[in-house]
Amino acid sequence: MSLKKIGSGTYRMEHPPVITSSAAVVGRMEKQGPLGAWFSHWHEDEYCGENSFEKAESRMQKEAMKDAFEKAKISEKNLDLVFAGDLLNQCIGSNYSLRDSGVQFFGLYGACSTMVEGLILSAMAIDGGFADRCAAVTSSHFCSSERQYRFPLEYGGFRPQSAQWTVTGAGCAVVEGEGQGIMIRHVCPGAIVDMNITDMANMGAAMAPGAALTLKRFLDDTATTPSDYDLILSGDLGKIGSSLLVELLKTDHIVLGENYADSGCLIFDPASQDVHSGGSGCGCVASVLCGYVLPEMQKGRWDRVLVMGTGALMSPTSIMQGESVPGIAHLVELSV
Amino acid sequence: MSLKKIGSGTYRMEHPPVITSSAAVVGRMEKQGPLGAWFSHWHEDEYCGENSFEKAESRMQKEAMKDAFEKAKISEKNLDLVFAGDLLNQCIGSNYSLRDSGVQFFGLYGACSTMVEGLILSAMAIDGGFADRCAAVTSSHFCSSERQYRFPLEYGGFRPQSAQWTVTGAGCAVVEGEGQGIMIRHVCPGAIVDMNITDMANMGAAMAPGAALTLKRFLDDTATTPSDYDLILSGDLGKIGSSLLVELLKTDHIVLGENYADSGCLIFDPASQDVHSGGSGCGCVASVLCGYVLPEMQKGRWDRVLVMGTGALMSPTSIMQGESVPGIAHLVELSV
Repeated sequence: MSLKKIGSGTYRMEHPPVITSSAAVVGRMEKQGPLGAWFSHWHEDEYCGENSFEKAESRMQKEAMKDAFEKAKISEKNLDLVFAGDLLNQCIGSNYSLRDSGVQFFGLYGACSTMVEGLILSAMAIDGGFADRCAAVTSSHFCSSERQYRFPLEYGGFRPQSAQWTVTGAGCAVVEGEGQGIMIRHVCPGAIVDMNITDMANMGAAMAPGAALTLKRFLDDTATTPSDYDLILSGDLGKIGSSLLVELLKTDHIVLGENYADSGCLIFDPASQDVHSGGSGCGCVASVLCGYVLPEMQKGRWDRVLVMGTGALMSPTSIMQGESVPGIAHLVELSV
Repeated sequence: MSLKKIGSGTYRMEHPPVITSSAAVVGRMEKQGPLGAWFSHWHEDEYCGENSFEKAESRMQKEAMKDAFEKAKISEKNLDLVFAGDLLNQCIGSNYSLRDSGVQFFGLYGACSTMVEGLILSAMAIDGGFADRCAAVTSSHFCSSERQYRFPLEYGGFRPQSAQWTVTGAGCAVVEGEGQGIMIRHVCPGAIVDMNITDMANMGAAMAPGAALTLKRFLDDTATTPSDYDLILSGDLGKIGSSLLVELLKTDHIVLGENYADSGCLIFDPASQDVHSGGSGCGCVASVLCGYVLPEMQKGRWDRVLVMGTGALMSPTSIMQGESVPGIAHLVELSV
């Protein structure tokens, strides 16, 4: 068996790659939310100065990359590989944001787990001896998601209380073989779990079982417990999905405590922002991780953090054909 | 600089991973084409016994995996990681084909370059010391592609001569750290190139510049010439794209000769099958590689082969918004 594989599917980094820089770009609602103070780069205008929501999304990705590269004092030319993806059909957010970069590029589709999927593959490429410097990039946009997945905004459809609100935001993390920053110590790629949820307006419930599987696998493989970590952050389970995750893990005698948080619950204020079950989208965990968690880890607030990107792997077509919603969760262990 | 990186972006495998098994599943037209004798598993019915084209695509993927795993005498449980993707919105072909597998899974979106993207990442995961056994999987389906990218089939729209015909097919390759088979010696991930082609019915032209960039980069990095290889296979440039690739490389004094072929030109017979500029889709290079090239290499017909997956990274939405079509090409060097 490969030396870097622990137990059933956690991978240990021999020389932990380092996230040397990160940046987030968000929209107005995210700026107005509880984490607003951490988001210095934001757009009042949902078009971000472009003429379509899809182009706005590409632009946010470009800006997140520019900010992260400036912090790392590098340019695109210094990157070996980029891993990027988004929710738009054929991942056009990423394809167009990277079109002029000249960087060697792997396109990903992990739904809302894409940020962590990109971090895992960046870490593997570096620890595997292939690359010195990679970037993981993703985005989502409320307006482009609404019209692609649900209804035209103009229709003004009502949303059930289990629905989540797609975060308008992009994140970029630069991962290097050497340097100052946050180390990626272990990674645990997800497997698909489908518990037969067919309600596209309840994606938290659809994603929770996949998140439970990955977190349990990781804790078993590393012989650790939730209390060994300062923060366990899930991607976008929202209110319903994160309470289901807590319940599911209890049946395996794993108790998530005060150190557990969900990005979708952190980014909006339930009292003043009517987002029902919370935030969602690739940009949710991306902006919370790149804009808030990584900088706070640098400041010493948390030392040892698990981040789990959660994705719902359906499409409007599959749902209309009566299919259920498969979920997946990818995990990275970060430490200062 | 990382030891495994050569020149501007080719990666050398320290212990070349081995493709120990592969399988292709195709549709009726592909079976009737010039490579039909190599495709033992095919479907007369375009629904493959399912009730939608999308489910048919997932089923072909499942069957290709089953065939490849049987040849390798393994089951899904013996895989460390799977890399898969397809053309359907949100990659539902792959998400649903892998839903019940329990395998740790990385979703990819590389458009028609996905098969080679998956082979590169499989090889990196193995040579990087993370995995012993991976699989790369992809598919496309004429009927699901037509209605998603172009028109409902019932509309009966005419297609310009530059258009290509999406291959109905799936491929799976099992990559292992040890074993008998075809070695992956070098890989060269692509970068996006956009030469401002805005005609979605001329994807060969849009993809050719990206293919020229990758092939030139690889030849430069490895100090080899096209004549050093027994076969140079591109993915789905078709008649127009492949002649453009030849022309583009000439300007760099790189001459592609008789050993160059395009999967999109091999899979259909231009005399008896009216596919205009040739075959296309993720399943094009996947079925030609997994069903024909790899088995023929095993038999000794070719020793040293370059395979280049080519992808057009647009969406119908981006095209309707006036965007051009970015292209990318990922390359692997195979040898017996």
